[in-house]
Amino acid sequence: MPLEPGSEDREALLALYREVRGRTEQICAPLHVEDFGVQSMPDASPTKWHLAHTSWFFETFLLAPLAPGHETYHPRYSYLFNSYYNQVGRRIARAERGLMSRPTVREIYCYRTWVDERMAQLVMKSSDGPWREIQPRLVLGLNHEQQHQELLLTDIKHAFSCNPLRPAYHTLPPRQDGPTHEGSSPAAHEWRTFPPGLIHVGHSGASFAFDNEQPRHRVFLEGYRAARRLTTCGEYVAFIDDGGYRRPELWLSDGWMAAMAEGWHAPLYWEKHEGRWQHMTLAGMQPIDWAEPVCHVSYYEADAFARWAGYRLLTEAEWERAAADQPVVGNFVERGILHPEPCRDRSGRELAQLFGDVWEWTSSPYTAYPGFIPARGGLGEYNGKFMCNQFVLRGGSCASPSSHIRATYRNFFPPQTRWQFSGIRLASDAQEA
Amino acid sequence: MPLEPGSEDREALLALYREVRGRTEQICAPLHVEDFGVQSMPDASPTKWHLAHTSWFFETFLLAPLAPGHETYHPRYSYLFNSYYNQVGRRIARAERGLMSRPTVREIYCYRTWVDERMAQLVMKSSDGPWREIQPRLVLGLNHEQQHQELLLTDIKHAFSCNPLRPAYHTLPPRQDGPTHEGSSPAAHEWRTFPPGLIHVGHSGASFAFDNEQPRHRVFLEGYRAARRLTTCGEYVAFIDDGGYRRPELWLSDGWMAAMAEGWHAPLYWEKHEGRWQHMTLAGMQPIDWAEPVCHVSYYEADAFARWAGYRLLTEAEWERAAADQPVVGNFVERGILHPEPCRDRSGRELAQLFGDVWEWTSSPYTAYPGFIPARGGLGEYNGKFMCNQFVLRGGSCASPSSHIRATYRNFFPPQTRWQFSGIRLASDAQEA
Amino acid sequence: MPLEPGSEDREALLALYREVRGRTEQICAPLHVEDFGVQSMPDASPTKWHLAHTSWFFETFLLAPLAPGHETYHPRYSYLFNSYYNQVGRRIARAERGLMSRPTVREIYCYRTWVDERMAQLVMKSSDGPWREIQPRLVLGLNHEQQHQELLLTDIKHAFSCNPLRPAYHTLPPRQDGPTHEGSSPAAHEWRTFPPGLIHVGHSGASFAFDNEQPRHRVFLEGYRAARRLTTCGEYVAFIDDGGYRRPELWLSDGWMAAMAEGWHAPLYWEKHEGRWQHMTLAGMQPIDWAEPVCHVSYYEADAFARWAGYRLLTEAEWERAAADQPVVGNFVERGILHPEPCRDRSGRELAQLFGDVWEWTSSPYTAYPGFIPARGGLGEYNGKFMCNQFVLRGGSCASPSSHIRATYRNFFPPQTRWQFSGIRLASDAQEA
Amino acid sequence: MPLEPGSEDREALLALYREVRGRTEQICAPLHVEDFGVQSMPDASPTKWHLAHTSWFFETFLLAPLAPGHETYHPRYSYLFNSYYNQVGRRIARAERGLMSRPTVREIYCYRTWVDERMAQLVMKSSDGPWREIQPRLVLGLNHEQQHQELLLTDIKHAFSCNPLRPAYHTLPPRQDGPTHEGSSPAAHEWRTFPPGLIHVGHSGASFAFDNEQPRHRVFLEGYRAARRLTTCGEYVAFIDDGGYRRPELWLSDGWMAAMAEGWHAPLYWEKHEGRWQHMTLAGMQPIDWAEPVCHVSYYEADAFARWAGYRLLTEAEWERAAADQPVVGNFVERGILHPEPCRDRSGRELAQLFGDVWEWTSSPYTAYPGFIPARGGLGEYNGKFMCNQFVLRGGSCASPSSHIRATYRNFFPPQTRWQFSGIRLASDAQEA
Repeated sequence: MPLEPGSEDREALLALYREVRGRTEQICAPLHVEDFGVQSMPDASPTKWHLAHTSWFFETFLLAPLAPGHETYHPRYSYLFNSYYNQVGRRIARAERGLMSRPTVREIYCYRTWVDERMAQLVMKSSDGPWREIQPRLVLGLNHEQQHQELLLTDIKHAFSCNPLRPAYHTLPPRQDGPTHEGSSPAAHEWRTFPPGLIHVGHSGASFAFDNEQPRHRVFLEGYRAARRLTTCGEYVAFIDDGGYRRPELWLSDGWMAAMAEGWHAPLYWEKHEGRWQHMTLAGMQPIDWAEPVCHVSYYEADAFARWAGYRLLTEAEWERAAADQPVVGNFVERGILHPEPCRDRSGRELAQLFGDVWEWTSSPYTAYPGFIPARGGLGEYNGKFMCNQFVLRGGSCASPSSHIRATYRNFFPPQTRWQFSGIRLASDAQEA
Repeated sequence: MPLEPGSEDREALLALYREVRGRTEQICAPLHVEDFGVQSMPDASPTKWHLAHTSWFFETFLLAPLAPGHETYHPRYSYLFNSYYNQVGRRIARAERGLMSRPTVREIYCYRTWVDERMAQLVMKSSDGPWREIQPRLVLGLNHEQQHQELLLTDIKHAFSCNPLRPAYHTLPPRQDGPTHEGSSPAAHEWRTFPPGLIHVGHSGASFAFDNEQPRHRVFLEGYRAARRLTTCGEYVAFIDDGGYRRPELWLSDGWMAAMAEGWHAPLYWEKHEGRWQHMTLAGMQPIDWAEPVCHVSYYEADAFARWAGYRLLTEAEWERAAADQPVVGNFVERGILHPEPCRDRSGRELAQLFGDVWEWTSSPYTAYPGFIPARGGLGEYNGKFMCNQFVLRGGSCASPSSHIRATYRNFFPPQTRWQFSGIRLASDAQEA
Repeated sequence: MPLEPGSEDREALLALYREVRGRTEQICAPLHVEDFGVQSMPDASPTKWHLAHTSWFFETFLLAPLAPGHETYHPRYSYLFNSYYNQVGRRIARAERGLMSRPTVREIYCYRTWVDERMAQLVMKSSDGPWREIQPRLVLGLNHEQQHQELLLTDIKHAFSCNPLRPAYHTLPPRQDGPTHEGSSPAAHEWRTFPPGLIHVGHSGASFAFDNEQPRHRVFLEGYRAARRLTTCGEYVAFIDDGGYRRPELWLSDGWMAAMAEGWHAPLYWEKHEGRWQHMTLAGMQPIDWAEPVCHVSYYEADAFARWAGYRLLTEAEWERAAADQPVVGNFVERGILHPEPCRDRSGRELAQLFGDVWEWTSSPYTAYPGFIPARGGLGEYNGKFMCNQFVLRGGSCASPSSHIRATYRNFFPPQTRWQFSGIRLASDAQEA
Repeated sequence: MPLEPGSEDREALLALYREVRGRTEQICAPLHVEDFGVQSMPDASPTKWHLAHTSWFFETFLLAPLAPGHETYHPRYSYLFNSYYNQVGRRIARAERGLMSRPTVREIYCYRTWVDERMAQLVMKSSDGPWREIQPRLVLGLNHEQQHQELLLTDIKHAFSCNPLRPAYHTLPPRQDGPTHEGSSPAAHEWRTFPPGLIHVGHSGASFAFDNEQPRHRVFLEGYRAARRLTTCGEYVAFIDDGGYRRPELWLSDGWMAAMAEGWHAPLYWEKHEGRWQHMTLAGMQPIDWAEPVCHVSYYEADAFARWAGYRLLTEAEWERAAADQPVVGNFVERGILHPEPCRDRSGRELAQLFGDVWEWTSSPYTAYPGFIPARGGLGEYNGKFMCNQFVLRGGSCASPSSHIRATYRNFFPPQTRWQFSGIRLASDAQEA
């Protein structure tokens, strides 16, 4: 990946299918059977449900309509594992996904295998006519599965954080240099300035992209500056210590209400023990490294922090312009750290940490690009119907597969969301520089 | 059981301990690992939690204060497995018991074994002084464990009912005679009449009873009649068909509001498929036998049904007087049916089905008997603090251990409760006979 | 009042009607037009609504069925002013009574006048046959109106307490002696002891009583003691200062949850300013007199206080036995103080403050007496359908009309209720004395 | 109005002040005293509160900081009448504005008079230094008051709609031509096409505009078409009749959830009686004229309707470009109809109904313009902190003062909002034409 949409190399595509599907199961390897069923909040889903839902996606959108003589695996699975596709039919209430002790984990792995076998047949044996439908849906299904790979990690992190025992998903060797703490002030911000201009935004070409990244279109940008690196925990602690969570004038009105209602006083997963900040990670409770990018903040916190610091967030067009010609490299899931890392690129001219580490909240509400056309049928519900009350995040995170991310990629979550690996990059209008 | 509180036969008591503890684990034998973690509503608890909580009870109230040199098994288990004992310390929120994928099932069985080993030592080796504290607490702990044996079954039934697959906990051989359906009208009610009089209510003597059954005291009863058998599903269907769930004049005001808010239109677990009533049982979805006692009704429904039928429910004193001299036999958990059965005793003079089958809602709010003294310390929270907004149920059910029940036994639940095996016996004032 | 149910003196009854109806309007005299429409919580109703509802009661249960040729005053008034009579028809949601700026206050007074004129005709001109229906309903309607007279005062007190300006409903001359404060410890409790015995409880005879006070029946009471006077604010402050609101072991489980959820730390209307307790009264904010009876406590607080003090509350039968032969005199609404007063009867043998001052919470859940028969038709909803999740209060308060109260009178409210004038009298089992 | 910010003609400004303030009171003239206190939902405010809040605005932001020797009118009024200015201090909870029967209506009119007198002194007597602060704040205060003039009408409409009596705020002479009903299909849509291009958006120049309309900046627009007139009720009925409220594929996900949760099946205020649609208006319940613009729809409904019709909504930049050179004339509040009217301009080339009638939902989330700088101090909370989860509406309504509206004016409300006069104008990408 990324494969060309029209690729005729079916064997390569099948190998890719197997790789992506296998990667999902590798993510689950460290878990106990008991861990697969927990749903710690309505936004999250049980591991087991992700495993089944991604298989249901292939069964529903590929096997059922396109595999000759397909018979459904189980008459109730569509009810159990449909996420939000109204056109596919009714489904279990989102908050009740954790109540299903059956099918068992073993039964769901059997379902995956069954789907994989039939998908292999479909890929290798379908004639050219159906193939023109199959190929793009297969690529979509793999990208869909990659999205759930990231959710598997964020959801299990949230579930483990709700357990008073604070279990660890994996262990990490201790860092050579050790974390940086209170004494070390982070390096001063450096900026890159962009002049005003008419740019192109969005995806074009034959490689895969979601419908919401298209069509490519023109946007005029006034001049702006962007911080070269992400905001650090140390900088965020300064915001906390300056009363950031107690000063409504720094916050959007809805953000202040959310902060009050939820009792926010630090990023999600942060706890202060005996005067020292710690946070829950996929390696269990850990002291906070002040040099690492702050993470698990909502849009509201990112926005309030920026206002406190005298800056603002980037718009998604500003971000995309800065990233458009950069290589997609960074701290992605393949690194195996599953946590953002301090910026090591301290001297370059380009923006650092654009890809991986943390998703960067932009100030752009998630809306349709001019000329946006959703996919036909049920798949049209994939992206378009969420274009309301959400904000765009860019760049992928330490839990994203690197092959899944590109400069035009638009992630989106409601502004109160905190359980994703989401962080902050500062910006300002150019004239303020 | 029941053992005398002062029993000196420690080996017999230890054998009883092992029998009761073993019975708890037998109840869990049919489950998959995945089933142990589900909490389908705040009122219910995961199987795993019951297994741990009953062990925590012995550790907290026996081992910790009375076993020399006791060291706690795990520093967080009290936080995880304390149910409601404020004096013992803080605890996880009731609705979050289902979020704990850890400790695993295997770890909890290890905890049980650890507790059992130390309990055996405590029973066999403690000197006579501590034994006077240990013996009554041990008996209390076994009765407590028996209560959770019933909850294990009702909670797993509820959890399975929330699963669209409607799994079965066990299978039953088909009945020889087959169920009775719509055509067969249930036998007319027969009654037993009781004259006015001053009676004694409550437990006395050396055998075990909970504090809330004491002290024995005098109650004056006006004359009344009691139905010889429980209300059947067929009779209840007549109530439904007569608009029972649509006529507010039949209901208590709070009951009507609950019925509207929850959308009640039949007992819990009833579903109408193609014109025929079925219900969820521990043997999966089954057609409803019209001759069997109606079950899984709230106090509100029991009360409304009685009003519709022109009768009322018994008070708990009226019930106890009728049961006082009857043998404690019936369809208890040992029968293995785990479902109420039609009345077979159609000719006797005494009340049938007093024990087992279903808990009988009485019209008595759960209050303290005159002179009630709760136990000292944390165990004083066992019963007394719930004497508000609950109603008394009597007689045990098909999920109760027979050795756990007696004529003076007071069960209690809030009036909207439906997931227990709770049913209806009609009564009236004597002068209306 | 009380009039004999069969009274033939229609002129006297009409005079009584006019007196009661006029008294309702006198209660409203100090209000501004703006005050008539406020509903400060769902449990309370706007003044305007009370004025109209009590008139609707006469129109619905007397004029409509019994006045020849009656035409309804307004086709929507039944929808607006029906309180909870399901059999009379649909009605506006309880919490929305404050949204009706129309009908105006003036229009509602016109409605009252219209009802009064037709009621006068009905009383004076109906023939003897209808009169046998009219007379008891009229007496019921007047008792109903008196209940709303008390609610008018408690509801306006609550509404004014929600206003940051804390308006006063009336003014009182300063007391000669001045209030008693912290330095003065209240007199030690004195007790009256009652031996065990079979007593009669409930109303009998020709004078008016509600259906829930009947039938008179036998109750056996074990021996008990009752405090001669009500619990004072000073005694209650000692409970607060001893951590009463922070010690769950003192509370019923539901009570503790209510106290936590609502943030209770003192009786309703109490506020601490600069270290001194004050409370909202119908005369505005006032310092608290430590010698006066504590008021505006829930059942939960009354129960917790009693447990803290080492005592309990009376049952309603115990209370009624003590009050049965006492004159119905006390600090009722006619005194015009509208606030409980310190006990002045410090030497008698009988219980003081039984009537007036504050309603005394009993430990008796509100249930039907043996043989209870609700009234036929819509009036059957008056009392019976509330016999669940409420507790009985006895004796009337400083806001009750004295002619409305008697020893058998049963008031009832849910245990979390605090806006009524409700207080505490301690008791204990006799053997503890 | 609009006045130049730097205007030195103080007498003209004072006359304007008096005119605007007087207009507010004229809006309240038809009301009864009882009507002034109702708050029918948290989004709405009592009439009385609007009257006081607009005066508090002048006292707080002009008199207190700028009038020499100013003493506050009442120490609690800031607590009562502050809307949402955190920097000004604490305030009464928004949902409790309806609980304040005091201050009375009369007292609030006195407060207005007191403020007006002091404002007159401030305008006429302040020296030139302070005047440079006073003048722009005064103009802002008048624009603020005009916003509340519109809210007064929408809030009283909502309150009256909650009253089962459905009172009328005013009466209208019957229309000469009479309303158009089912038989008449509305005229086919005509469109105006706009080519791609770089345009300027936002306010510039010396005349008054809110901070959120600034700075003027460049936006590139792809080509698009806009409907010449607003969507009519008849067109909207076709959407309803085609199952528009039952087809989730037409809706945004959040919109569908709102529609389900709220039970939407038609615009707010629509009711079907005996097969005919009627709606609540400020002239009471009226039959719906199919030719008039549909009104009281949420953004979600506007969006779903457009999707159903095969079109979309305009962005705010697209709207502003179309309106930029049009005269600000239309059915504004001065017409006195207080209801949208059918389009009469059926032949022009320009867009009709751009101004007045109904606010037009745009597809633009409400965000900051590039280079946006909020006002300093408390007034900075006026607009900026709401730039989240809201959508922009353009053009003013039949309840807006015409002098308050301009082409750059940005109104904004959350997408579920329905009680404003909000409607629909269709658009599409140019290439689809």
